[in-house]
Amino acid sequence: MDNSSQNWLHENFTHTGSAFGLRIKRKLEEVQSPFQKIEMYESTDWGNVMLIDGAMMVTTRDNFFYHEMMAHAPLFTHPNPKNVVIIGGGDCGTLREVLRHPGVVTAVQCDIDEQVTRMAEKYFPELCESNNDPRATVMFDDGIAYMQNAPAGSIDVIIVDSTDPVGPAEGLFNQAFYENCLKALRPDGLLVQQSESPLALMHLILEMRNAMRDAGFKDFRVLPFPQPCYPTGWWSCLIASKQSRDLASFRKADAAAKSFETNYYTADVHQGALAMPPLIERALKD
Amino acid sequence: MDNSSQNWLHENFTHTGSAFGLRIKRKLEEVQSPFQKIEMYESTDWGNVMLIDGAMMVTTRDNFFYHEMMAHAPLFTHPNPKNVVIIGGGDCGTLREVLRHPGVVTAVQCDIDEQVTRMAEKYFPELCESNNDPRATVMFDDGIAYMQNAPAGSIDVIIVDSTDPVGPAEGLFNQAFYENCLKALRPDGLLVQQSESPLALMHLILEMRNAMRDAGFKDFRVLPFPQPCYPTGWWSCLIASKQSRDLASFRKADAAAKSFETNYYTADVHQGALAMPPLIERALKD
Repeated sequence: MDNSSQNWLHENFTHTGSAFGLRIKRKLEEVQSPFQKIEMYESTDWGNVMLIDGAMMVTTRDNFFYHEMMAHAPLFTHPNPKNVVIIGGGDCGTLREVLRHPGVVTAVQCDIDEQVTRMAEKYFPELCESNNDPRATVMFDDGIAYMQNAPAGSIDVIIVDSTDPVGPAEGLFNQAFYENCLKALRPDGLLVQQSESPLALMHLILEMRNAMRDAGFKDFRVLPFPQPCYPTGWWSCLIASKQSRDLASFRKADAAAKSFETNYYTADVHQGALAMPPLIERALKD
Repeated sequence: MDNSSQNWLHENFTHTGSAFGLRIKRKLEEVQSPFQKIEMYESTDWGNVMLIDGAMMVTTRDNFFYHEMMAHAPLFTHPNPKNVVIIGGGDCGTLREVLRHPGVVTAVQCDIDEQVTRMAEKYFPELCESNNDPRATVMFDDGIAYMQNAPAGSIDVIIVDSTDPVGPAEGLFNQAFYENCLKALRPDGLLVQQSESPLALMHLILEMRNAMRDAGFKDFRVLPFPQPCYPTGWWSCLIASKQSRDLASFRKADAAAKSFETNYYTADVHQGALAMPPLIERALKD
């Protein structure tokens, strides 16, 4: 092995007291956008890696867990999703998964930082392969303003695919934002948001759930899944419904008959993610 | 934060190209046993941490995933497990979980290295709390020899809870060892072994499955689960049956009515772990 491949890039997560790292071949690029610092590396075994403000966001190898769960879990939970909005999601991986659903008529991706998408086009072209789908709108704007201005009752599923609740994404984790989401959703609409590690950051999940409840959302469900490059490697998304309904019920037959391939998501995996480990169940009761 | 808490302990997994780390308060102890080097650290957020030959084995905070899945998944898959043998398992966490089953009559733990158990008694006393259960035998001997000498048809469940297939544990991952396990099991007996990361080490799972099949085991099932401190944070166990049977079928009603508390394992979580993500299913077909 040559010397350069001996380099390890470690991200120390101060809030969890744990770290994740990858063996790096070389740094590919670094840009400072108006919003954040974006770094790209080539790893020895995980493909390319994107960091935003020092936090690992995407790797070629393991992004499928996150993107598949963030898209397919809510879309198969909604009875008939036609109009989908992704807030954040600049790497375009969630958009690609959303567009795999033939019933989707429009999918808007609104990320504040165009540079994230430019870097994804260059280093994760496979995630961007559906950006020119006629149903897709890839725009660069403030997601908070987008939801403020969205026509009432116009959206079926809102997917908040953002960085952590610090920096530019902070305003995507509070009651005011959720109230705008609620208003923009149709009656059977769903909101889903990445909700951090159920092992180490359960208090964040609770804060999000409580703020969504205060905003008027009725039912909630945390779905855990593996995501190696995020803190603790065990991640989750939080689904909330505008109307009262059982979020453990989803279109299982449609999911089992889905017309596209996945690496992680299946109807049975979705069902499995609905099984609440007692450590999550106990925390949610608090 | 004081300076000592700024120390991070990173384990670089050369075979996966990824790393895991913990923020460390201080080193507690280091011993060189006749078999391996054992190090103990106190972390800031994960309790105590045991390393064997530099590899993270156990932390106070996250060991429950592994121990619960390694014990409860096979014990609720077996129709009526009375006699259980654990090969390895020196930290005693698997033994504790096995003894939570009231139907278990004897549980033998055979680890080659007494020092591992001595360290666990000191730094993970909660994992050792059942070592004096009258049904338990904690012995220190060669697990390969133990299985060679075990009376034929005397064991219901064999749990191989060892380090990775290098060093002292290497002989626990080959056909000769599995043949001895097969002989020692009763007709409805099960073998379960920790089987590495399905994301990064699928070839090891295949090698184990193939060696078990060559030894005469009939059916196989890989159950994935989170285990943050192991490579990629996504781990698995491999269950094999002496007789042909459906290993996706387990005593679900008994698991749902279990008399003990867990943090991760439930009947539904067990069912969920049986849902095969396509990336595992495709690999197992090879």
